[in-house]
Amino acid sequence: MLTLHTWTTPNGRKIPIMLEELGLEYDILAVDIGKGEQFTPEFLAMSPNNKIPALEHVDADGNKLTIFESGAILQYLAEKTGQLLPAAGPARYQVLEWLHWQIGGLGPMFGQLGFFALRSEEKSPLAIDRFVEEADRLMGVMDKQLSKHPYIAGAQYSIADIACYPWAVAARDKLKPAVGDKLADKPHLNRWLDMIGARPAVQRGMALPKVD
Amino acid sequence: MLTLHTWTTPNGRKIPIMLEELGLEYDILAVDIGKGEQFTPEFLAMSPNNKIPALEHVDADGNKLTIFESGAILQYLAEKTGQLLPAAGPARYQVLEWLHWQIGGLGPMFGQLGFFALRSEEKSPLAIDRFVEEADRLMGVMDKQLSKHPYIAGAQYSIADIACYPWAVAARDKLKPAVGDKLADKPHLNRWLDMIGARPAVQRGMALPKVD
Ligand SMILES: N[C@@H](CCC(=O)N[C@@H](CS)C(=O)NCC(=O)O)C(=O)O
Ligand SMILES: N[C@@H](CCC(=O)N[C@@H](CS)C(=O)NCC(=O)O)C(=O)O
Repeated sequence: MLTLHTWTTPNGRKIPIMLEELGLEYDILAVDIGKGEQFTPEFLAMSPNNKIPALEHVDADGNKLTIFESGAILQYLAEKTGQLLPAAGPARYQVLEWLHWQIGGLGPMFGQLGFFALRSEEKSPLAIDRFVEEADRLMGVMDKQLSKHPYIAGAQYSIADIACYPWAVAARDKLKPAVGDKLADKPHLNRWLDMIGARPAVQRGMALPKVD
Repeated sequence: MLTLHTWTTPNGRKIPIMLEELGLEYDILAVDIGKGEQFTPEFLAMSPNNKIPALEHVDADGNKLTIFESGAILQYLAEKTGQLLPAAGPARYQVLEWLHWQIGGLGPMFGQLGFFALRSEEKSPLAIDRFVEEADRLMGVMDKQLSKHPYIAGAQYSIADIACYPWAVAARDKLKPAVGDKLADKPHLNRWLDMIGARPAVQRGMALPKVD
């Protein structure tokens, strides 16, 4: 039995996409981070860094495993099912390279851009310029990689694509006022956005969790 | 044959520590990021995000594998040797949780703190306050985890400790002007810093790469 605790944000949507790709059954519980629900003792017991997503897995014997950090959850689900992450060899580490690149770069830097350029009332031009420039650089790195390979980690669709996709969508949609036209001049990234966005599982996952 | 391309920074020192712990033979090449050596075509071919560390492995048949992103490199070396990352079960995912927590949180947030509080000539109080507070929060998360477990991912020393250690040292030393006394009131984190810092392999790794 899998239960996903998540929200309607880029990190929150990676795991519904993955679960939909794998065709696994799961429950999904919304954790409204705007209302501070990530600070309840029950949630902190699973996710001590007070961030979504977190996954609970109870096996047939009643043993419970909980995991926080989207990268660790993606890897858990991939290793559990033998899908979307090769078990060995160079292709495995190409996926892990780009997964870590998303976790350590694309995610936190786009997150800071959203804060300084959009959410903060006080504006710091120094910080806004820094994160706009870094967002453009990171999208450039992705564009270059995708000029050589169909998918972000090479020839095959993988958990690295799933990790990057909701953040690239954020650059196109929610972060657009900050990113401006810097996505438009990245043809390979746009080609990939269309290709990943056409997958039915990705479309289903991007619509989760359902909230009123 | 292993060749490590790295520099004297927290992310750069994780891999020498790991290689010293494993007792593997390797060459180490300094990439002076202050001089822009991360932008040479040779380095970018291995590390398209222009960041150290990057690892090259040439096997007995002359097949060459290169890996960037410290988290991916740590996992590669752990899986290659069967050490410092359990092969399966809950303990494996506890290590991966905290590895990803370092890659996505501790590393980038401390990195931004260093930029805004120390390296930038122009000062943004908004950004400085944000990253000082986030650094304190992250150290608090670590302290709480270490109040319950000897090591960051639980009962055993792992690649999660190796990933976090150079950043905790940065909070104590280089980032001290920004962090102030916020490390002092984290007794469990300090206990762990002393314990990890007493390991001979950690001491050797923290002194690398040697530069004049
Ligand atoms: N590195 C983490 C980042 C998770 C994260 O930043 N989650 C955000 C939403 S996208 C969150 O829960 N924020 C609430 C908070 O920090 O209080 C991951 O990939 O899981
Ligand atoms: N997430 C990356 C971060 C690596 C990183 O930030 N490296 C820095 C030095 S600590 C660097 O090479 N900076 C040079 C640059 O960005 O031009 C990792 O863990 O490997």
